[in-house]
Amino acid sequence: MQYPEPITQLIASYMKLPGIGQKSATRLAFYTLGMDEEDVTGFAQALIAAKRDLQFCSICGNITENDPCIICQDTSRDQTTVLVVEQSKDVMSMENTHEYHGLYHVLHGVLSPLNGQGPDDINITSLVTRLQDHSDISEVIVATNANSEGEATAMYLARLLKPAGIKVTRLAHGLAVGSDIDYADEMTLIKAVEGRTEL
Amino acid sequence: MQYPEPITQLIASYMKLPGIGQKSATRLAFYTLGMDEEDVTGFAQALIAAKRDLQFCSICGNITENDPCIICQDTSRDQTTVLVVEQSKDVMSMENTHEYHGLYHVLHGVLSPLNGQGPDDINITSLVTRLQDHSDISEVIVATNANSEGEATAMYLARLLKPAGIKVTRLAHGLAVGSDIDYADEMTLIKAVEGRTEL
Repeated sequence: MQYPEPITQLIASYMKLPGIGQKSATRLAFYTLGMDEEDVTGFAQALIAAKRDLQFCSICGNITENDPCIICQDTSRDQTTVLVVEQSKDVMSMENTHEYHGLYHVLHGVLSPLNGQGPDDINITSLVTRLQDHSDISEVIVATNANSEGEATAMYLARLLKPAGIKVTRLAHGLAVGSDIDYADEMTLIKAVEGRTEL
Repeated sequence: MQYPEPITQLIASYMKLPGIGQKSATRLAFYTLGMDEEDVTGFAQALIAAKRDLQFCSICGNITENDPCIICQDTSRDQTTVLVVEQSKDVMSMENTHEYHGLYHVLHGVLSPLNGQGPDDINITSLVTRLQDHSDISEVIVATNANSEGEATAMYLARLLKPAGIKVTRLAHGLAVGSDIDYADEMTLIKAVEGRTEL
C-alpha cells in the first residue's frame, strides 16, 4: 500500500534535502499536514522567492538580491583587502564579528581532488580578474576552513597570487577562545605553539 | 548584518519544522539555493498540494485524498475488526505486513495527562459513535505504541468499550523477531515470559 499521492510527492521533495532520509522525510511530511495553512503557504512562497530573487554578486560571488551586493557597493569599506571564503555563510560569520571592514570573495567550494573539484570548478578565475582590474587591492586574506582541503586551497591561491606582488595571508590557527588545552587536538596545539605571540 | 530577506524568510520557514534549529535551517536554505529550479518549484507545489488535497477520512480519521478513504470504502475487507492506531503512519506500517485485512481507526494522539491531552483531545468519540452505528464490529485491536501513554490509552479504551460487549485486544509484547535476549530490556523479558505460547 502506498501513501496518497500528495504525501508521497512531499516525502520525495523532503528527501532531496541533505541529511534527510525516508524516515525523517515521512515525519516532516506528516508534520507539515498538521501545520497552519498560512505557515505552509509561506514556506512554499519562501522557497520560490529564494530561488527567484537571489543571485550571486557578479563581483564577489556572495549571495545577494541586487547585483552588485551591498558590500561591493559600499565605498566606505577598505578597498585594499579581499577576504576569500568558501561559502556565502562564511561572509555572514565574518561580518558578525564587526571587526573586518574590507571586501570579500566567495569561492563556492574548495579544491578537492578526491571529489574531482579543481581550480576551474570554483570561483578563482573571477578573483584573478578582479585583482588584475583593481590595482588598489594589496592583500588577500584566505579564510578557507581549517581542514586539509581548505589548506590546499590556501596554498594554491598563495602560489597563484604572490608572483603578482599581492600579499597573501591566512587566518591564524590556534586554541579557540574559551577552550581547554586538555581538549585541544595535537595538531591544533602544534599550530598554537608555532604561532605563539609575544606578550 | 542580516542575510538578504528571501533567505531569512526561507530559514524562518525551515525552522518551523520539528528538530530543525537555526544552524540546520541555514544549511538547508543555502542548499535550496543550489538546487535545480524544477526541484524547488516541485517542493513548493508539493507543500501546497499536500495541504490542499489531503483530508482526514470522516469514518476512520486516516489521511486520504477522497472521503471516505479507500480502506473504509473497500467492502472486501473484514468489517468486524477495527485496529486502533495513534497515527496515520501506523496504518501504513500495518498495511505493509499484508496480514491484517480489517478496518482501522486513527486516534491522532494518545492520552497524555502530563501534556494535558485527555480523551476529548483525541479521536475517541468518533470511534464510540462508529461502534454504535455498526453493530457488526465485534473486536477492537488496540495498536497504540508500547510505552506508558500507549498502555494508558489501551486501558482506557478497554474500560470504555468492554461494557458494550465488544472484545478489546492489545498487540502482544515480547522479543522483537531477530533480537538477542541479551539485549532485551527487563520489562520486555517479563512481558515475553508472561505471554509465552505453547509449542
